[in-house]
Amino acid sequence: MALINENYQKLAAGYLFPEIARRVKAYTQNNPQAQVIRMGIGDVVLPLPLTVREAIKAATDEMGTLEGFRGYGPEQGYEFLRQAIANDYKRLDGLEIDSDEIFVSDGSKCDSGNIQEIFSLEAQIAVTDPVYPVYVDTNVMAGRTGIVDQKGRYGRLNYISCTQENSFIPSPPSTAADIVYLCSPNNPTGTVIPRSVLESWVSWARKHKAIILFDAAYEAFITEPGQVHSIFEIPGARECAIELRSFSKNGGFTGIRCAYMVIPKNLMGHTTTGTPVSIHALWSRRHSTKFNGVAYPIQKGTAALYSEAGKKEIEELIKYYLANAQIIRQTLSALGLAVYGGINAPFVWAKTPEGTSSWDFFDTLLHKAQVVVTPGSGFGACGEGYFRVSAFALRENVLAAMDRIKSCIAVN
Amino acid sequence: MALINENYQKLAAGYLFPEIARRVKAYTQNNPQAQVIRMGIGDVVLPLPLTVREAIKAATDEMGTLEGFRGYGPEQGYEFLRQAIANDYKRLDGLEIDSDEIFVSDGSKCDSGNIQEIFSLEAQIAVTDPVYPVYVDTNVMAGRTGIVDQKGRYGRLNYISCTQENSFIPSPPSTAADIVYLCSPNNPTGTVIPRSVLESWVSWARKHKAIILFDAAYEAFITEPGQVHSIFEIPGARECAIELRSFSKNGGFTGIRCAYMVIPKNLMGHTTTGTPVSIHALWSRRHSTKFNGVAYPIQKGTAALYSEAGKKEIEELIKYYLANAQIIRQTLSALGLAVYGGINAPFVWAKTPEGTSSWDFFDTLLHKAQVVVTPGSGFGACGEGYFRVSAFALRENVLAAMDRIKSCIAVN
Repeated sequence: MALINENYQKLAAGYLFPEIARRVKAYTQNNPQAQVIRMGIGDVVLPLPLTVREAIKAATDEMGTLEGFRGYGPEQGYEFLRQAIANDYKRLDGLEIDSDEIFVSDGSKCDSGNIQEIFSLEAQIAVTDPVYPVYVDTNVMAGRTGIVDQKGRYGRLNYISCTQENSFIPSPPSTAADIVYLCSPNNPTGTVIPRSVLESWVSWARKHKAIILFDAAYEAFITEPGQVHSIFEIPGARECAIELRSFSKNGGFTGIRCAYMVIPKNLMGHTTTGTPVSIHALWSRRHSTKFNGVAYPIQKGTAALYSEAGKKEIEELIKYYLANAQIIRQTLSALGLAVYGGINAPFVWAKTPEGTSSWDFFDTLLHKAQVVVTPGSGFGACGEGYFRVSAFALRENVLAAMDRIKSCIAVN
Repeated sequence: MALINENYQKLAAGYLFPEIARRVKAYTQNNPQAQVIRMGIGDVVLPLPLTVREAIKAATDEMGTLEGFRGYGPEQGYEFLRQAIANDYKRLDGLEIDSDEIFVSDGSKCDSGNIQEIFSLEAQIAVTDPVYPVYVDTNVMAGRTGIVDQKGRYGRLNYISCTQENSFIPSPPSTAADIVYLCSPNNPTGTVIPRSVLESWVSWARKHKAIILFDAAYEAFITEPGQVHSIFEIPGARECAIELRSFSKNGGFTGIRCAYMVIPKNLMGHTTTGTPVSIHALWSRRHSTKFNGVAYPIQKGTAALYSEAGKKEIEELIKYYLANAQIIRQTLSALGLAVYGGINAPFVWAKTPEGTSSWDFFDTLLHKAQVVVTPGSGFGACGEGYFRVSAFALRENVLAAMDRIKSCIAVN
């Protein structure tokens, strides 16, 4: 009898975004005239950069010739791309990353969901609350958690509460854990973990022989000087951290799919008897057994982002979305709401007015302002009473949405 | 302490193809003048079809406009592609597959590696021997096996021996199992499972409430009338089977990455207490949590394969590679070797001369004929004494390789 993985049955309700989609669909079906503005899912809207398009098309043409045709590529990515990525790290005060420490993939969601496979099912996992749901759900599916409680927290998971009290900045817990997921700039709160706090994370991890999974998918949005762009800027991080980066939000690649992980060759996990084992070797084996690399034209398109023209196009995209974020921040602040993020991140995280619950406020905005935001409680218990606004929208929509929210909150 | 997944340490040696690559590299470094002909890895060599290239480029251009830009697509694939795939099944005597039973992915290797996640770690797995190594290795990594024995067989795995005695055609075992991987046309043996045998597989699976994972990645190479193209042609298969298909070998997509699985909505797994659970729902959850869909331009390129022009281009590619297969078959047969496959598949499976071991014969061909084949023992104990020759090569290379093999075997 084909027994199923019963851990799936522990998963609480639907994944957040399908539930949002369901409510929006129900509303628009009942109100076909409504002009809904979507600032829920963090999905880019501006056109794919020209340099990327030209490179994809040229590589596609190459594939049409006997000499230029490419079949299976190296699973970890072509050297031209890995080298471009490694070189770019040098911008961070000469940071040295070897090109063979880079594993090119088809997305940070995939990477952050798959990386747990190389760790023990007994591993103690720590996540922040609020948190990007994929970190949690993939560990639930694998069987590293107990069942979910009324607040939506799973047994056996260690939650690090991020609240107004700590300005939504997670600090290391007093106890041990084996694997911790950190996201900075943070999805959903838009906050950045300061250097000093990251230093304390690295020393915590080294003390406990823990591993930090550092998700820096929104790194390109860091604008304040002095903020940390890569965990490897912190001394000692090569012995305790993996970094995840994505081209989705800087190059506008959500529909193109390319990302990467950096796994230092000297990073070690351990067997139960305490023998150190190379994490790089484990992931190499996993990656080459279950994955066949990213399409050649897409890797060429990605590499084009590192050209001078490509960098300039990224800069323009980031500038546009950050200007949106500023408009959102200013509007919500002026309405008297407590506001976080939006300075070094494309997300603004705000407190709902008068203690309304996240989903109630979501429904209010959908029904009265026809604006879709993301309910903070969808990211965890500590997100209750908050909502996330994505800056990934056209300027005119941001302005219209802010006008509507102003009227809506003023009326309520 | 970050404990690792110790199941990885059960994995026997390296994955087959990296070991081949290592030996070829060592040889070419010592013999820089050698003109090595590679017929080992089953990787296509002919240019990407024109219709595909045109569609990828047009979709890339679309992405450069505000109106045409696409961000995150549906994880399961765009409806235009799922619909095209579903329609194409109708060619098989009107076979009805719903478009929402299709999950588009970035490769059959990924699908066949990932599908096991939704089943219990206690599930009894059955595989054929010889076998595509990914089926085995991903179950080893997940912890469904014991350790490996001297023949390369893992404890707790059920092996179905395919040998000269059964013409390399696997029949259902007399005992039960929960999940069975079948590949037809077969990689590596090139054989096709006849309809009557597939019928016995379906009744075996239904009797034991088992699930058949039917890998039909090479389906396009079936040329003999009356052979089964889809497991769903067999009555009752919708209650016990999942089908995997790929565009790698028909459309020349090994460097482009697109594939799909068909999971019938009425296919059920079970909990330990015997409650039926929809496999379609489980995979939907897995797929949408850990995967973000295939790039939009690539899905458009894939859909182009279903146009009249695209179908014609596939036909030409298949014809070319099958003509290669015929040359290989005829040459090896004429040398007196026992030969399988190559009629409905791009692989020829042959017995080594005079009982030479697979790796010894691999080394002989590499060193004396500068031809790379795949040692049969790399696919399992029953593959010992056999070798696989891939028909994915340019005609001139096939002819040259056959000449060299002829001289080499004659001399030995």
